Amino acid sequence: MAARITMDKIRVITVKQSVFANNNARASELRASLKKQGVFLINLMSSPGAGKTTLLVSLINRLKDQLAIGVMEADIDATVDAETIEAKTGVKTIQLHTAGECHLDAKMTQEGCEGIGTQGLDLLILENVGNLVCPAEFDTGAALNMAILSIPEGDDKPLKYPLMFKVCQAIVFSKIDTIQVFDFEIKKAEARILKLNPKAVFFPLSAKTGEGVEALAAYLVKQIKAYQSTK
Amino acid sequence: MAARITMDKIRVITVKQSVFANNNARASELRASLKKQGVFLINLMSSPGAGKTTLLVSLINRLKDQLAIGVMEADIDATVDAETIEAKTGVKTIQLHTAGECHLDAKMTQEGCEGIGTQGLDLLILENVGNLVCPAEFDTGAALNMAILSIPEGDDKPLKYPLMFKVCQAIVFSKIDTIQVFDFEIKKAEARILKLNPKAVFFPLSAKTGEGVEALAAYLVKQIKAYQSTK
Repeated sequence: MAARITMDKIRVITVKQSVFANNNARASELRASLKKQGVFLINLMSSPGAGKTTLLVSLINRLKDQLAIGVMEADIDATVDAETIEAKTGVKTIQLHTAGECHLDAKMTQEGCEGIGTQGLDLLILENVGNLVCPAEFDTGAALNMAILSIPEGDDKPLKYPLMFKVCQAIVFSKIDTIQVFDFEIKKAEARILKLNPKAVFFPLSAKTGEGVEALAAYLVKQIKAYQSTK
Repeated sequence: MAARITMDKIRVITVKQSVFANNNARASELRASLKKQGVFLINLMSSPGAGKTTLLVSLINRLKDQLAIGVMEADIDATVDAETIEAKTGVKTIQLHTAGECHLDAKMTQEGCEGIGTQGLDLLILENVGNLVCPAEFDTGAALNMAILSIPEGDDKPLKYPLMFKVCQAIVFSKIDTIQVFDFEIKKAEARILKLNPKAVFFPLSAKTGEGVEALAAYLVKQIKAYQSTK
């Protein structure tokens, strides 16, 4: 476990990648341990600025009365996202600093889990580093991989960053309140993702207006209940 | 040099990272060689979907009558960007595939330079992989590092991805035609970047409306003339 520092209210842990670890084996171990505890881990990934934190605030405020939720905010630097989540939702939040790394691996996620304390949680959300490339290559031990593609980024992104859209079961199209301003065809994006990943499910939404967030919340509650019923 | 494949009109080269190379030494060599030829290499970086390709089309069409321009489009997959550049500007364009790598290093850039053929060029633009993290760590040998931060991404990105804004001399704020729709304060973004990089210069613009593109074009012409006058 790396050093811990307390910065104002937000606890920060620096997590370091293990070069020699077998990431897949560690991810499987972490997944099995969380399953035993009934803790559903979501690995949330996207480009920088696609709206991960804004979506989490909106989603958590819809779910926190029925689920015990924790959030691990991973960043190279700063604590702005963890502060936002804690201030706007009140749920247990920790900041993970990656010491320059562009993604989280299973060992780093495990350190985060130890840092936040998973006991009693139903839902633990890892907000990965904003990056559409590298995080997709590392299994973190999550029960669900979820990606956000924002409308301003364009509907061609699945062509250029295919792995991300292959490894995620749930895909959010965010900022749909701006769809009039940008050239983004949801049907085109869906077709491109389904070619890579025929079982992908889609959630077009706007965390700003609230449109579509309820459907994602309902989907997650259903997933978590099914997961916990077989632990 | 890796294998070359011809796909329709766009030539594709797969460039592979050299694990053992001393990247800084290779970058210096490439920079010296390009300087001797008077070829000004720009390394253009941003998140996915910030508008690198759209800006290049607008910029190149303003510059191609006074400068001989080449473009190297780096992507993990697809050739959509190279096709767009070639179709909309007519300048010499090559697609570099990174074999999964999330960034270009100096060796990969050198392979790209050999692939496209730098002779007679005034300006060579490398459109790096869309990623605000990893490309910032690798000197490609460019004369100028340029980053784009798009308005929809938010003005907090320099806090979270500081290295990118440290290593770039020129920073473009793109999609400013959408500034009414998003919470982005240009003054705030500039102040955050200047803290990391006191000499940064800023170009707020919209490639869609054309606003601000002329100022960037004029800046680049000035840089290139100064560079070529001392070769």
